[in-house]
Amino acid sequence: MSHPHDHRLRGVLSPVLTPFELDRKPSAEGLVRHCRTLVEQGVGLAVFGTNSEAASMSVAEKRTLLDALLSAGLPPERMMPGTGACAIPDAVELTRHAVQAGCAGVLVLPPFYYKGVSDEGLFRAYANLIEGVGDERLRVYLYHIPPVSGVPITLGLIERLLKAYPKQIAGAKDSSGDWENTAAMVREFAADGFDVFPGSEVFLLPGLRAGAVGCITATANVNAAEIMHLYREWQTPQADAWHERIRKIRGIFQAFPMISAMKEAVAWQSGDDAWRIVRPPLVELSDEQSLELRRQLADADYRLPMADALWYSE
Amino acid sequence: MSHPHDHRLRGVLSPVLTPFELDRKPSAEGLVRHCRTLVEQGVGLAVFGTNSEAASMSVAEKRTLLDALLSAGLPPERMMPGTGACAIPDAVELTRHAVQAGCAGVLVLPPFYYKGVSDEGLFRAYANLIEGVGDERLRVYLYHIPPVSGVPITLGLIERLLKAYPKQIAGAKDSSGDWENTAAMVREFAADGFDVFPGSEVFLLPGLRAGAVGCITATANVNAAEIMHLYREWQTPQADAWHERIRKIRGIFQAFPMISAMKEAVAWQSGDDAWRIVRPPLVELSDEQSLELRRQLADADYRLPMADALWYSE
Repeated sequence: MSHPHDHRLRGVLSPVLTPFELDRKPSAEGLVRHCRTLVEQGVGLAVFGTNSEAASMSVAEKRTLLDALLSAGLPPERMMPGTGACAIPDAVELTRHAVQAGCAGVLVLPPFYYKGVSDEGLFRAYANLIEGVGDERLRVYLYHIPPVSGVPITLGLIERLLKAYPKQIAGAKDSSGDWENTAAMVREFAADGFDVFPGSEVFLLPGLRAGAVGCITATANVNAAEIMHLYREWQTPQADAWHERIRKIRGIFQAFPMISAMKEAVAWQSGDDAWRIVRPPLVELSDEQSLELRRQLADADYRLPMADALWYSE
Repeated sequence: MSHPHDHRLRGVLSPVLTPFELDRKPSAEGLVRHCRTLVEQGVGLAVFGTNSEAASMSVAEKRTLLDALLSAGLPPERMMPGTGACAIPDAVELTRHAVQAGCAGVLVLPPFYYKGVSDEGLFRAYANLIEGVGDERLRVYLYHIPPVSGVPITLGLIERLLKAYPKQIAGAKDSSGDWENTAAMVREFAADGFDVFPGSEVFLLPGLRAGAVGCITATANVNAAEIMHLYREWQTPQADAWHERIRKIRGIFQAFPMISAMKEAVAWQSGDDAWRIVRPPLVELSDEQSLELRRQLADADYRLPMADALWYSE
């Protein structure tokens, strides 16, 4: 008998960085290449996340990119695109597109413009989305990232949503950085088939030990091999040492404007300087920051992680 | 010789409430009627503001509503639609549409998803918008509303933008609620033709005395006559008494979820219960809240302000 969740997303996923051309238009070709490298290493594709600069792209741009990934043969069963938006019609449009494309799940921010809104209002927002899409295949992962969105997903809201939509509500990404909250999500809801992904590899090992199913972490863009190694070996005696190792690398990236720092590292790895480009309101690293990042990573014996995977050679 | 700003927006503008149908689609017909009543009373149309639930509507929905207003003959020279968005392509699309329609100005939120971004990043966001629209007629009003957007428009950013785009940067709406900041905007930039609108009638009188050009205030949706009276009579001895009067009415609405409370009042005035509808994540007032609002307004001798304007009869 198969495990009831065998078909579900688990393991390490990456909010995939989005490459832009010199005119700041998204580069579908660059995104396909980067996604291929991630998938080859075992990393799932949480495209259109916070670290993908998803909020800085229109719905039409995201639809086009998703179509390009699917046309290139990237596996929808390893995809959890971010489809949340302030306007529910936008969220419905992109979510429906993802579901019809066969994506395993969608990661859904709450509407994030208004602050201090009630759980009742957020419940209605997710309910409107689920009923607006109206597709049995929809699997929603709730995206709790209060430091950025300003709008938390409370345990009470999860409970209400799970009761109303037990099949559609599949889990959550917890990017609160608050381990107690992640542990509470697992404790309260994992038994109901609610899959919890901490939002950082810093919580991958404690998460797996507590009953989380993996993690969704930005630094998988630049440190996939080491993070995947911990995921595969988490039950071995070496796990704690790997945990410390990946914490250290993450700490280096996190001390810089993180999206820009990761794009800088991908630019070195790929030899393609356009990878440095970000959309406003983000700003690329200065030359000084870039040198300092490189120095700190070298001191930490950070290897360009994609080299072994024949990065960018096809 | 005419005053150099005679053609510019000034006075009292309202972030016009957006009526929805029972299926939560925007009601163009209802919006036209409400705008007409506001314009008849002298109030300008800051459609698609925070209180318009603009963030909860798609770009396509907002384009359609703007077209409906113009087709109905409402005056673009009294319009300052909100056109800011997290994604610059969205902001460019709606802004271009507004400029080509002849709108006197646009009120532009900064991209508001990422927090703690630099002035350099915000400068680039506005620069990309202005250059992306590429129309000499564009007049941008910067929208400073940190309690909601989480992304402040600093005095340093205004200075840089005014230097780079002296013709396009026309002013600001200051919804910080911080009078010192409003006064500083006027003191630093009004002489350069930068028009400051406080974001509440509470600052209308002190603002006019300090050199602001009016205000953009939500409660103009429900108390237009009294606010316009203060605007017209601000240099008379009765101004301070009117100031206290409109402060009191605003205070009542503000003690409730304000957008829902204003829609409740318009529903009473119009006799159209659909006006109570809000989009998630907002929630309409409960029956108890509605009764309490009505009681407090009656105690304050609040008259249904639109009655004299033959509200909804055409």
